[in-house]
Amino acid sequence: MVERLRVTEEESMRVAESDLREVVRAIFLKCGVSDEDAERATDVLVTSDLRGVESHGVSNSLRGYVQGFKEDEINPAPQWKVLRESPSTANIDSDRGLGIVVGPKAMEIAIEKARKVGVGVVTIRNSRHLGMISYHAMMALEHDMIGMTMSSCPANVNPTFGAEARFGTNPMALAAPGDREAPFVFDAAMSIVPANKLILARRLGVKLLPGWTADENGTPVMDEVDAPPLGPDGIPVANLLPLGSTIDLGSHKGYGLMAIVDILGGILSGGGYGLIPGRPNFNHYVAAYD
Amino acid sequence: MVERLRVTEEESMRVAESDLREVVRAIFLKCGVSDEDAERATDVLVTSDLRGVESHGVSNSLRGYVQGFKEDEINPAPQWKVLRESPSTANIDSDRGLGIVVGPKAMEIAIEKARKVGVGVVTIRNSRHLGMISYHAMMALEHDMIGMTMSSCPANVNPTFGAEARFGTNPMALAAPGDREAPFVFDAAMSIVPANKLILARRLGVKLLPGWTADENGTPVMDEVDAPPLGPDGIPVANLLPLGSTIDLGSHKGYGLMAIVDILGGILSGGGYGLIPGRPNFNHYVAAYD
Repeated sequence: MVERLRVTEEESMRVAESDLREVVRAIFLKCGVSDEDAERATDVLVTSDLRGVESHGVSNSLRGYVQGFKEDEINPAPQWKVLRESPSTANIDSDRGLGIVVGPKAMEIAIEKARKVGVGVVTIRNSRHLGMISYHAMMALEHDMIGMTMSSCPANVNPTFGAEARFGTNPMALAAPGDREAPFVFDAAMSIVPANKLILARRLGVKLLPGWTADENGTPVMDEVDAPPLGPDGIPVANLLPLGSTIDLGSHKGYGLMAIVDILGGILSGGGYGLIPGRPNFNHYVAAYD
Repeated sequence: MVERLRVTEEESMRVAESDLREVVRAIFLKCGVSDEDAERATDVLVTSDLRGVESHGVSNSLRGYVQGFKEDEINPAPQWKVLRESPSTANIDSDRGLGIVVGPKAMEIAIEKARKVGVGVVTIRNSRHLGMISYHAMMALEHDMIGMTMSSCPANVNPTFGAEARFGTNPMALAAPGDREAPFVFDAAMSIVPANKLILARRLGVKLLPGWTADENGTPVMDEVDAPPLGPDGIPVANLLPLGSTIDLGSHKGYGLMAIVDILGGILSGGGYGLIPGRPNFNHYVAAYD
């Protein structure tokens, strides 16, 4: 993690894992989430904190989810269903359910398909935030399988040379078993940083690094600048750059990788591109290789 | 393409496509490649030039292939075979065959599996250079499918903070049909640039850009430097940086993406990691989504 985004000891409040789980579960239940789903959603958030991914843990994410439930933007009791299916694929309508609830169910389907025919790919449309997306990929590890996840997010990243946001931060994750070694787990936004890092920078009052955002003309900002304020939707008002930052450093590659996530997570799921103005939802891709 | 790597008009020699195909095919035949395979290999190289990917076209690649045939490093008449298979997957031993010959055959198998069960994934071990890897991904377009390819290459890229090369340039490609629009085609090394770009820079006598290579301590070189000489194996003697170049600009993401290609192309195929010292071969991953 970038050093300045590390929460300092003075600012930290240490909480026992079991206490944290209890409180988070109670909050989800209060929002109308079922017992089983609250258990899973809690596990995703607390696992993120335990892995040091504070940007996607309880303190940085739960507030936004609660607000989403309150505003009826996120459905606490989604009637998700499989719309189409083949031996190695499925497509799910998530009924505005939280990705940290429906994602694990989709991954279970992918794992079952992989067991039967070798590979399982499940796409999810009309969903909401998937949390730390490697959580779902890591579910494959218990079955000695490789897991892969992608999430097509609402647009706040500019294409190379672009002056306006056209892509989500669109993370990709892969988890592979390591036999007697620790598993390999990768999880990263294909933008220079995820939007949650900007929220964290704002909370911590630290500046952004050069090469993270574009100015109003689309030119990469190569100075340190203040973290942007949050918009009414809780998303930072900033134009992030793709991984690579500038054309000489390969920002067209980050651009292309974001497009791949939009194609496999957004188009293939039927949910559409992240650039659709005002598209409030997230669409996902989960896969397992036996 | 980076402006300085564009071949100038004065240096260019324009050749009619049909003449080029004839000469290239004759050269492959002379090297002991079969009629059918020479036809395909020629199409891969000429298609690269026609698409403007000169780094992987005739002038920059064929010489190395001929040398490989002469030194018996590449098998002109490989007896490739499917070692393992499931309804959605297959694993091929390429018998030291050129990737631009065996790759299309593997992709045909992936497309057939995708037609039957939804997704087809084929891994290839004991192979050689895959050429412009989007060629194989684009084969899916004729079937209105999405194609994806990856190639685990011999090591010449340093991990983030690393002083020695541990990864190949490990490109990833995706081709998706565009209905009435042009298809989407992405193809890029997960290193800051592919090794072939260094060969091209050397040929053109131009300097490398800041952020492309690491010095002997692993520190990113942020000045313009001369293109490195080629080693006895025809590979540039340089330590490339991952996409992202520096830690603040996300080089750990390029590092992780190279590892993903090594896992899906190298480990899953049974061919092993790119870092295996002296591993002369390339291993690949091709997939089709119906």
